[in-house]
Amino acid sequence: MKSVARNALYAQAGGATAVLNASAAAVIAEARRHPGRIGKVLAARDGLLGILAEDLVDTSRLSTTDLAGLATMPGAIFGTCRAGLKTRSEDSRSWQRIVDVLAAHQIGYVFYNGGNGSSDTAQKLSEIAARTGYPLCVVGVPKTIDNDMVGTDSCPGFGSAAKYVATGLREAAMEVHSMARTSTKVFVLEVMGRNAGWLTAACGLAAVKAGDAPHLLLFPEVTFNSQRFLAKVKETVISKGFCVIAASEGIRRPDGSHVSESTNRDSHGNPQLGGVAPYLARLVTEKLGHKCHWAVADYLQRAGRHIASATDLAHAEAVGRAAVELALKGGNGIMPVIRRKSSLPYRWNIKTVQLSAIAVRERFLPASFMSADKWGISARGRSYLSPLIEGEALPPFRHGLPAYPNLQFPSVSRRLGGFDIR
Amino acid sequence: MKSVARNALYAQAGGATAVLNASAAAVIAEARRHPGRIGKVLAARDGLLGILAEDLVDTSRLSTTDLAGLATMPGAIFGTCRAGLKTRSEDSRSWQRIVDVLAAHQIGYVFYNGGNGSSDTAQKLSEIAARTGYPLCVVGVPKTIDNDMVGTDSCPGFGSAAKYVATGLREAAMEVHSMARTSTKVFVLEVMGRNAGWLTAACGLAAVKAGDAPHLLLFPEVTFNSQRFLAKVKETVISKGFCVIAASEGIRRPDGSHVSESTNRDSHGNPQLGGVAPYLARLVTEKLGHKCHWAVADYLQRAGRHIASATDLAHAEAVGRAAVELALKGGNGIMPVIRRKSSLPYRWNIKTVQLSAIAVRERFLPASFMSADKWGISARGRSYLSPLIEGEALPPFRHGLPAYPNLQFPSVSRRLGGFDIR
Repeated sequence: MKSVARNALYAQAGGATAVLNASAAAVIAEARRHPGRIGKVLAARDGLLGILAEDLVDTSRLSTTDLAGLATMPGAIFGTCRAGLKTRSEDSRSWQRIVDVLAAHQIGYVFYNGGNGSSDTAQKLSEIAARTGYPLCVVGVPKTIDNDMVGTDSCPGFGSAAKYVATGLREAAMEVHSMARTSTKVFVLEVMGRNAGWLTAACGLAAVKAGDAPHLLLFPEVTFNSQRFLAKVKETVISKGFCVIAASEGIRRPDGSHVSESTNRDSHGNPQLGGVAPYLARLVTEKLGHKCHWAVADYLQRAGRHIASATDLAHAEAVGRAAVELALKGGNGIMPVIRRKSSLPYRWNIKTVQLSAIAVRERFLPASFMSADKWGISARGRSYLSPLIEGEALPPFRHGLPAYPNLQFPSVSRRLGGFDIR
Repeated sequence: MKSVARNALYAQAGGATAVLNASAAAVIAEARRHPGRIGKVLAARDGLLGILAEDLVDTSRLSTTDLAGLATMPGAIFGTCRAGLKTRSEDSRSWQRIVDVLAAHQIGYVFYNGGNGSSDTAQKLSEIAARTGYPLCVVGVPKTIDNDMVGTDSCPGFGSAAKYVATGLREAAMEVHSMARTSTKVFVLEVMGRNAGWLTAACGLAAVKAGDAPHLLLFPEVTFNSQRFLAKVKETVISKGFCVIAASEGIRRPDGSHVSESTNRDSHGNPQLGGVAPYLARLVTEKLGHKCHWAVADYLQRAGRHIASATDLAHAEAVGRAAVELALKGGNGIMPVIRRKSSLPYRWNIKTVQLSAIAVRERFLPASFMSADKWGISARGRSYLSPLIEGEALPPFRHGLPAYPNLQFPSVSRRLGGFDIR
């Protein structure tokens, strides 16, 4: 290996977050601080797929202003994918292709920015050096609105989505309260989090004090029982005059089926969820006779950069910077994550975990973060969640709307032949 | 009539908006500037119903800080109703009751803050002086997120809801764009506006330039044709790689039926709408095979004070102040509204309209505000809409969330017997 600076490759994978591109900007900015060690920062289009397809772009032309703008953009600027990498014995062809692409572009560092599934891909990429002799440092960069990665106190992206849903629910609850005596008495907000109830729990932050809306949180970790649910709604409408509910998209019946499964399947073959809120609203109207309204936030919560958490943004930038620092120290198969030092005041720093210790695992909302009756969050849950939504980090506005720059990246000329991605 | 200051009565009616309470705060603040003319500002709980029930609160204890806080709160602080008033010949009993309540509390001024239906109530209340001899000035205060009141250039409340949906759609479109090559290709946002497409049109502001998302707007004024819709979605996915759609909750099929009618009915007996987005998403997935995501903003868009438009807030405050000024000039059966003097730069002032000229009428989105193919907005539509979302008017934040004050109002002691509201 020559001592000349080798290039870095950055890739985004899985669902986007409001601050994913802030991690991207931090990786690029930090890499530029080490021109003797790192050459260009290239990026793969659509994550792993772009590596396999040799579909790369060059970030070198981004000005400092562009980088600052990138850090304000929701979505995944380079595109993302949910595709995973098989083991080398299962798919040696793809592994060889990846080595060929990396070598063709003098890549010495890979920064793979994703969640649980993507950590597995990053982990496999990190085995390249050991398995093939190609010198490579692979460092994961964590992100997911679901907050379901193990090994980290919280996941960059979660705090902003949490702030989005808690803000929206606090506001919508005031509307319901205004109408409740004469019209709508029940409101249901459906939030993301297929298996883990972190975002559902974040809705609990909308309550200033005990008894405030939201009155019922339906966690995916808690089996949905329609009789118990209806009894609680009925009781809440009687005692409070209205009932505000936040429900995870992934709640399940006692038989394990999702409360609202659609016939659509996602790219993993999982049933595409959604429709829990209208289902619950219909149930309440039919069984209790109350007028209901319901909302499904869907991508609005994942892309809500206008209401991003300043804390979350700081996390996203810190893990991006730390990933570059770790790679420069020769780190491989690792990921910088958030370590909480205290909740009040909130203090945190970055620690490092092994990708092998966290890949494909999933962290659920602990029962201790739920209230005893499991309809809300506990003081401990609130203490955990509250710092993560702290601080406002507004993007610039222009003509009344968030002004996101229109960044263009030149494609890197292909040096290899085509590759048939199977 | 004695020359002593008589009290004012303020009431809110219909659906709330992000800035309805800013009008309330402006009415109260402006009335306080005329202590020799206006005594206390009382407020009716739940609009007309509170007047009939003699369920009144006193706003006198609100401090200046409280008033400033009130102006930051979504919802309708005094509660609202959709109940209307029959004619005097149809319901002389209610008319007499209203006069009794007004007289019992020395009310000389009524400020009725509502939309189209509420303007009819205000108009009827304004006839009290002429019909019964009870001296009363009734002034309407406009508000509705639907922007469907005639006589005004725009309706306070609309600009903030418009900013909410345009912001959310711009952000969500960036998420779809990130995922489109490998996953979700179509996104549908359902917005309010049962008959009038103003909020649907506002979604068009999310596009910075022609061809940007959103690619299809489905206005309630345009008959929904599923074949034409599917052809357009198919074409857009081919040409753009993804397709972002904003759909009014009220779109109808060629036979006049709503695309998604639920079996629920609202308090007016109208079918409760909602579910257009999941319907369209299912249609696209079944017929075109694309993975879809969908969101229904519902109350989140009506209560989204965190993303309120500064222009809209200024409108809401201006009509509140103007209503008091008009009443002090002896105005009755009138309403202050927004007059646009120019769009670029945006200049506006307040003019006065007769309630009789606007009550129960409805203003639809003109065809000239739609693009020629009716899938988007025209330059004229954009020029109309754009100033209304201009400027950010954030509420104070505390612990990461909008901090809305907890205002309490003492009930006014009843001076009359009960009344059975039929």
